[in-house]
Amino acid sequence: MSVTNDNAKMKVFTLNSNMPLAGEISKYIGIDMGKCIVKRFSDGEIQLSIEESIRGYDIYLIQTTSQPGNEYLMELLIMIDAMKRASAKTINCVIPYFGYSRQDRKARSREPITAKLIANLLEKAGATRVITVDLHAPQVQGFFNIPVDQLLAFPILSNYFVDKAFENIVVVAPENNGVVRARQLADKLDAPIAFIDRNRRPKSYIPHGMEIMGDVEGKTAIIIDDMVDTARTITSASTVLIEKGAKEVYACCTHPVLSEPAVDWIKESEIKELVTTDSIYLPKEKQIDKITVLSIAPLLAEAMIKVQTNQSVSTLFD
Amino acid sequence: MSVTNDNAKMKVFTLNSNMPLAGEISKYIGIDMGKCIVKRFSDGEIQLSIEESIRGYDIYLIQTTSQPGNEYLMELLIMIDAMKRASAKTINCVIPYFGYSRQDRKARSREPITAKLIANLLEKAGATRVITVDLHAPQVQGFFNIPVDQLLAFPILSNYFVDKAFENIVVVAPENNGVVRARQLADKLDAPIAFIDRNRRPKSYIPHGMEIMGDVEGKTAIIIDDMVDTARTITSASTVLIEKGAKEVYACCTHPVLSEPAVDWIKESEIKELVTTDSIYLPKEKQIDKITVLSIAPLLAEAMIKVQTNQSVSTLFD
Amino acid sequence: MSVTNDNAKMKVFTLNSNMPLAGEISKYIGIDMGKCIVKRFSDGEIQLSIEESIRGYDIYLIQTTSQPGNEYLMELLIMIDAMKRASAKTINCVIPYFGYSRQDRKARSREPITAKLIANLLEKAGATRVITVDLHAPQVQGFFNIPVDQLLAFPILSNYFVDKAFENIVVVAPENNGVVRARQLADKLDAPIAFIDRNRRPKSYIPHGMEIMGDVEGKTAIIIDDMVDTARTITSASTVLIEKGAKEVYACCTHPVLSEPAVDWIKESEIKELVTTDSIYLPKEKQIDKITVLSIAPLLAEAMIKVQTNQSVSTLFD
Amino acid sequence: MSVTNDNAKMKVFTLNSNMPLAGEISKYIGIDMGKCIVKRFSDGEIQLSIEESIRGYDIYLIQTTSQPGNEYLMELLIMIDAMKRASAKTINCVIPYFGYSRQDRKARSREPITAKLIANLLEKAGATRVITVDLHAPQVQGFFNIPVDQLLAFPILSNYFVDKAFENIVVVAPENNGVVRARQLADKLDAPIAFIDRNRRPKSYIPHGMEIMGDVEGKTAIIIDDMVDTARTITSASTVLIEKGAKEVYACCTHPVLSEPAVDWIKESEIKELVTTDSIYLPKEKQIDKITVLSIAPLLAEAMIKVQTNQSVSTLFD
Amino acid sequence: MSVTNDNAKMKVFTLNSNMPLAGEISKYIGIDMGKCIVKRFSDGEIQLSIEESIRGYDIYLIQTTSQPGNEYLMELLIMIDAMKRASAKTINCVIPYFGYSRQDRKARSREPITAKLIANLLEKAGATRVITVDLHAPQVQGFFNIPVDQLLAFPILSNYFVDKAFENIVVVAPENNGVVRARQLADKLDAPIAFIDRNRRPKSYIPHGMEIMGDVEGKTAIIIDDMVDTARTITSASTVLIEKGAKEVYACCTHPVLSEPAVDWIKESEIKELVTTDSIYLPKEKQIDKITVLSIAPLLAEAMIKVQTNQSVSTLFD
Amino acid sequence: MSVTNDNAKMKVFTLNSNMPLAGEISKYIGIDMGKCIVKRFSDGEIQLSIEESIRGYDIYLIQTTSQPGNEYLMELLIMIDAMKRASAKTINCVIPYFGYSRQDRKARSREPITAKLIANLLEKAGATRVITVDLHAPQVQGFFNIPVDQLLAFPILSNYFVDKAFENIVVVAPENNGVVRARQLADKLDAPIAFIDRNRRPKSYIPHGMEIMGDVEGKTAIIIDDMVDTARTITSASTVLIEKGAKEVYACCTHPVLSEPAVDWIKESEIKELVTTDSIYLPKEKQIDKITVLSIAPLLAEAMIKVQTNQSVSTLFD
Repeated sequence: MSVTNDNAKMKVFTLNSNMPLAGEISKYIGIDMGKCIVKRFSDGEIQLSIEESIRGYDIYLIQTTSQPGNEYLMELLIMIDAMKRASAKTINCVIPYFGYSRQDRKARSREPITAKLIANLLEKAGATRVITVDLHAPQVQGFFNIPVDQLLAFPILSNYFVDKAFENIVVVAPENNGVVRARQLADKLDAPIAFIDRNRRPKSYIPHGMEIMGDVEGKTAIIIDDMVDTARTITSASTVLIEKGAKEVYACCTHPVLSEPAVDWIKESEIKELVTTDSIYLPKEKQIDKITVLSIAPLLAEAMIKVQTNQSVSTLFD
Repeated sequence: MSVTNDNAKMKVFTLNSNMPLAGEISKYIGIDMGKCIVKRFSDGEIQLSIEESIRGYDIYLIQTTSQPGNEYLMELLIMIDAMKRASAKTINCVIPYFGYSRQDRKARSREPITAKLIANLLEKAGATRVITVDLHAPQVQGFFNIPVDQLLAFPILSNYFVDKAFENIVVVAPENNGVVRARQLADKLDAPIAFIDRNRRPKSYIPHGMEIMGDVEGKTAIIIDDMVDTARTITSASTVLIEKGAKEVYACCTHPVLSEPAVDWIKESEIKELVTTDSIYLPKEKQIDKITVLSIAPLLAEAMIKVQTNQSVSTLFD
Repeated sequence: MSVTNDNAKMKVFTLNSNMPLAGEISKYIGIDMGKCIVKRFSDGEIQLSIEESIRGYDIYLIQTTSQPGNEYLMELLIMIDAMKRASAKTINCVIPYFGYSRQDRKARSREPITAKLIANLLEKAGATRVITVDLHAPQVQGFFNIPVDQLLAFPILSNYFVDKAFENIVVVAPENNGVVRARQLADKLDAPIAFIDRNRRPKSYIPHGMEIMGDVEGKTAIIIDDMVDTARTITSASTVLIEKGAKEVYACCTHPVLSEPAVDWIKESEIKELVTTDSIYLPKEKQIDKITVLSIAPLLAEAMIKVQTNQSVSTLFD
Repeated sequence: MSVTNDNAKMKVFTLNSNMPLAGEISKYIGIDMGKCIVKRFSDGEIQLSIEESIRGYDIYLIQTTSQPGNEYLMELLIMIDAMKRASAKTINCVIPYFGYSRQDRKARSREPITAKLIANLLEKAGATRVITVDLHAPQVQGFFNIPVDQLLAFPILSNYFVDKAFENIVVVAPENNGVVRARQLADKLDAPIAFIDRNRRPKSYIPHGMEIMGDVEGKTAIIIDDMVDTARTITSASTVLIEKGAKEVYACCTHPVLSEPAVDWIKESEIKELVTTDSIYLPKEKQIDKITVLSIAPLLAEAMIKVQTNQSVSTLFD
Repeated sequence: MSVTNDNAKMKVFTLNSNMPLAGEISKYIGIDMGKCIVKRFSDGEIQLSIEESIRGYDIYLIQTTSQPGNEYLMELLIMIDAMKRASAKTINCVIPYFGYSRQDRKARSREPITAKLIANLLEKAGATRVITVDLHAPQVQGFFNIPVDQLLAFPILSNYFVDKAFENIVVVAPENNGVVRARQLADKLDAPIAFIDRNRRPKSYIPHGMEIMGDVEGKTAIIIDDMVDTARTITSASTVLIEKGAKEVYACCTHPVLSEPAVDWIKESEIKELVTTDSIYLPKEKQIDKITVLSIAPLLAEAMIKVQTNQSVSTLFD
Repeated sequence: MSVTNDNAKMKVFTLNSNMPLAGEISKYIGIDMGKCIVKRFSDGEIQLSIEESIRGYDIYLIQTTSQPGNEYLMELLIMIDAMKRASAKTINCVIPYFGYSRQDRKARSREPITAKLIANLLEKAGATRVITVDLHAPQVQGFFNIPVDQLLAFPILSNYFVDKAFENIVVVAPENNGVVRARQLADKLDAPIAFIDRNRRPKSYIPHGMEIMGDVEGKTAIIIDDMVDTARTITSASTVLIEKGAKEVYACCTHPVLSEPAVDWIKESEIKELVTTDSIYLPKEKQIDKITVLSIAPLLAEAMIKVQTNQSVSTLFD
């Protein structure tokens, strides 16, 4: 795929969270990365300046708000403020992984809705658009009053498994709330689904407090989730799947949060391969053989080009 | 249960959508319904006036935005405007059924997020709080910047089935996205779950394009959903359940939308009883034997009293 | 009059209230009508999608908020939300008849100011401009913080009567508050004015509770009003005018609201002809011989072209 | 009328425009005037401080924005800012005469709507309510999103003429747009109306370019307007009235703007007496015999007491 | 310096405060001044209209808010409102001297922060950018949420003294809070600094209540301040400087507020020359020999060109 | 000092940054600390809940935004969101040290104004008031639209030195911009001032690039600054002071930021004692003998009581 567009007025900047991804995006678009300095003062406060004029430009500012999320979020907010004051025409925030997106409702009384708070903060700071990938819940789009382009990494993951051409597949939702996502992948692979029913009955006789619904015997199980954090969910699921006769277990997710001790647990688990994307940067020590990273840089780059040249983004979803 | 609280400054008003429920609420609280006139001009525009002083009062304004939803929503917005201009201290909107709540995300490109729009319109008009019941997605709370008290009718429904003391139950989610809700009820009834997997594969061999996951044979199946609109989902589910050997089929939901031809379909279906609430008023012709309506008036009244007297609402969730 | 402008970035959409007018506008401009679907879900909620990319375009969205006004208003608000989220550059609402514009002040205590509420709702939803015709009170422009282009249909109406070349005219205000409007038309026709003084004295000796001020004997009376709703005002005025010796009675207005039983009353009245515009669509049964409809499509189309090409709209007022 | 209310938390402040009126109001309420200093720095900038704690109080801030209106308006805005920052609980602006209220619409292209601008500025500064008297157009209430209590000085004026017990009255609107106001007074006095039709036809044969409609011969004419600015309108009207045989001419208005050379013109005119209010302070040189000033202090004071004690203000309109 | 830029869409307007400066700016840019009328109604209210279409243009609106500041500020706010409603694309306020900028903090309890209020009012009215010169405190930029381009007149003043090539200079801060500004000029002139320490000890033995810190003997003293209001500070400083042996005393400032009796005091003082700019217009009677006015028109014109053509403004600071 | 006030509706909460100070405050007021949980999820995201009802309460939320400032700021913002949604009546943020307050202006082009951004974020999240101590620049108050109560720790510091009763004092500003602050302390101690003039001339002959202005010989020098970060400024100043003959050197500041390697530098410096406050918590390793910490807990507690009971805070400044 080659790109020639007349996006004369576009500038792309990145902050510190995922420079390799940002680099691939700018290479794909064929545009130099905008110059800026993002450092810390001696007391840890963020010191930031933009080292070229952005007056009148459409800015695309890339920042994943993964761990340490508060630091990366503050970098993003402060940079938006600087850009607004430096007379950027528009400030399009490219947030491949939107941190805090699991805090999208009050699960109990007197909890915050942090994802909504962050939407408000981004708008207040001056963001004029958000481009993101696979929100934890699609309703988070509605937390914003500015346009949100939510891209789907799902086709990238599903194509990977289509290419594998497994014979006898079952797509597995590792928790009750993942059935819809599993159904989507199953439709693509023309496969049945199963899911892990986790109940909370006090005197449950079920090992691990969970039970598989659906037939997995002799099948290649593909667990799908939107993100993998500590990996407890998918690794415990993989144990049960093998116990119940699954032939082998794969897993996939869009966002590799991989908090401690996720990598160790995956290493030791029955999971043969975890397929994920580079929405979050994996440091060297997390780049193990079992984890396959597919790049969403082309997806993001195409979206940015389409936004800049006023083409429909929906074509990216086919 | 009797109520004596010193809510001297509280006034309760209702608009046209669900006067019986509003009447029960005011009776439960022991407060006269506020006087207002809500009519139509000759051209159908809403004509509205408040017939008593509300200056400095905390107002609780009851309006379900069920069919005809646009009319009832406009009544609500215009009344909020009138109350704001008439110097109400606070305007607490009691919206038992929050219409348009299914339009909570962009399912396809270039669709509205109407639930968010309505949240914005309510805030702009002057609402200072929303009290509602069982939102379609809990994330809709995050569409608001004002406090939202989301009450749960779930305990009312589950207690009803606990009292029935069925022997061999399976709780059924009628669609892939209802598994979490089914699991909640199943935990309460100490029962397993099942669900109807609806796939979209072109050459599917499955009758009705759906398949039951989980064991239903010989069991009393209780289908649970948050709302029942045309009833196609639950009636087709009931057919499959009986085919698969379920002993009998019950259904329950919080919001009886019951658009045409829901009542006919339910009458003709395998469903033995649909248990629901009065969050939406059912006109005479929809009040059939098969439909049992449990009142949420005490739940709403208690919540309003607690809000007015600054007590915690969370105790209502036990 | 022919049009050649380079409005490459313009798109015109219409909603359901007045498709014939919208069609004429788009034909005049020489632009295809944008594709969108506006339907109802089974429960009456508005279902809406935009069927072509509008990213970066200047949108002109045509919708008269005539009866059923609440439905048409909600269509408009929801479409604005969809367009904002679909990254329209600007959303120019073309509202030939601005419903609820008579609710522009608190006539009594504790009434809403619905026209202001609607202005707020339109802005909150995302409208960036309003183009409208003959507001009930010009002050309604001030309800908005966004630019409002108020066009005047008055020249269209007055030219019609200039062409008639009546000999001995009197322009009649049918109520005390219409004298300014009558004076404007009278200036154009070089005629005197009269008006119907409606008093509220308890023991009034006046037939119909009204009295004509000014000389109408032997003259062709032209009643002028901004809108005709039930037609009671103009038909009762015509009776009095004939009683007082007027030779014949014409009437004109910009907005033919014509609520029941307006058409019947006009048919049976002394009014020879009611001259009006297509700001509101008249269904077949209201298209009677006595009613002459002049099109404002060229006026609106010219305004839209001028807005899009940054020319002054004020030239349209000559 | 005596007042005893428990408005412990009320404080009343005045700025410089109409201290006599403010003094009467505070006396009527029986509350000391709040201490503040409003001076000018050497360069004319407003220097202002509040000399007592207002933390948590409901403030009533009295300022008429009459000539020099820009100075008085800025005093008002700056004081609101100071009060907001000094933690006032509410800031109720009592603006007996709302300056710039005639700039309430775009009369021509590219004009401001200054009355709306000022409404926006007051809200932005921090005003939480406006109490005012007889707005030029009632629609100006709709320029605000905060509650506006518009009081009517009309009963004070009409009662004055009822007490006069004239025998043969005609109420006169001095311009085409004053007919509604004239009708109101006429209803109260059980009298007919007349009005001065001012036309703009080039070759008009009419003296003074105006013509009286209605019968004035031998009658006591009472001209009514909302405000009198240069007095050209009412003095030229009085000339015509006398020419047409009126026995004597009175005039009344709520707001005595009385810009140069109004007082001279009134002195020399046929007007026997101009009855007005103290909404605008008249300096010594304008206090001539022909001008009778009725006080609106009781009206404003009652309104403030009712607002503070959460009673209905509508009773003041009887 | 010559200018050729393709600022086709730029229009420049001026209000009444500093027409000579505005004229020089438009001449420098090579653009005709936009036509508008700014007058007063008979009661002193501002009457204003724009006499050419500005639809879609980037507007640069020049107005210094010097004495009478409230009048000039209201002119500015009302014109912004008119321009917003007349569909200007952007409204860039060029405010060479930002009045009220000394009221930038609460010096005592219950004072306003008028500079912040004015920032809020400008934004609310519709300003989209502010271009200004030498704010009293740089923090005032942070009072705005819109971009602020603060230009520095400092290089113009310092170059003037560099050209003078004095031999033995000391730069003097006339008050404790001016030391930073003095240090900047001293760095440019490679000179030491001194300052006037004004203490508030009750029984101070110091003449004039002040004391010079630093060596001034035999030196050419250059007092620097951001603005000169009544000139008391700099003239009393000059007296002390001469007493302490300074050879001669110059003064400079960006903003010549020069309230009464500044010019007289300067005339009679030891100050040999006051060097200032035309950010504020000096009427004939203030244009005395001792006062040298350097024009900032080129600085402002260059900034406006750069803003319009999206070039960096920072190059103007070298 | 003992406290008995009827602040029945007050609740005090603290976040993690300075629990010892918060504890002292609650003890002083005599109120239990509100219960809340502030933890981290496995990926570092803040997990937070309020463990008691706060419905209708006035909340005082204590959080200093010192190092790690981004973490503490996010805790604060998220807690405000939770409190707003939990129906707190008011949310008063007690921020003893307002981090990022040095980023209060654009020092160079294209920098953020982070202090303003944070003010905006706090307001957007739902803060209704800020109580803080010694802002870096008083103008930061103007960044807020909500009331800000800025307390002064200055009297606490100055009283400490008054008690010391030194004989021959000079108060020293360690940089050009600290002269005003030094003058304040000097007035209190009836002492002269000196300051360190730091110039930037390339070929400066001055040791350390700085020069003392004012007489320090044989005197007890007291350096004053608002905060001490790396301590480079005050330690280098102390070296010069001793070189110039000062008898001994003390230092004082309100906010002990004390970033690495401040404590080491202070230890090794000529500074005899650094007097500061507990606005920022000093961990054990920073609690060295040379550093004296005075508590501002009584100051903050008194302010909170006064705010809650609607008394003037200004009395705290005497």
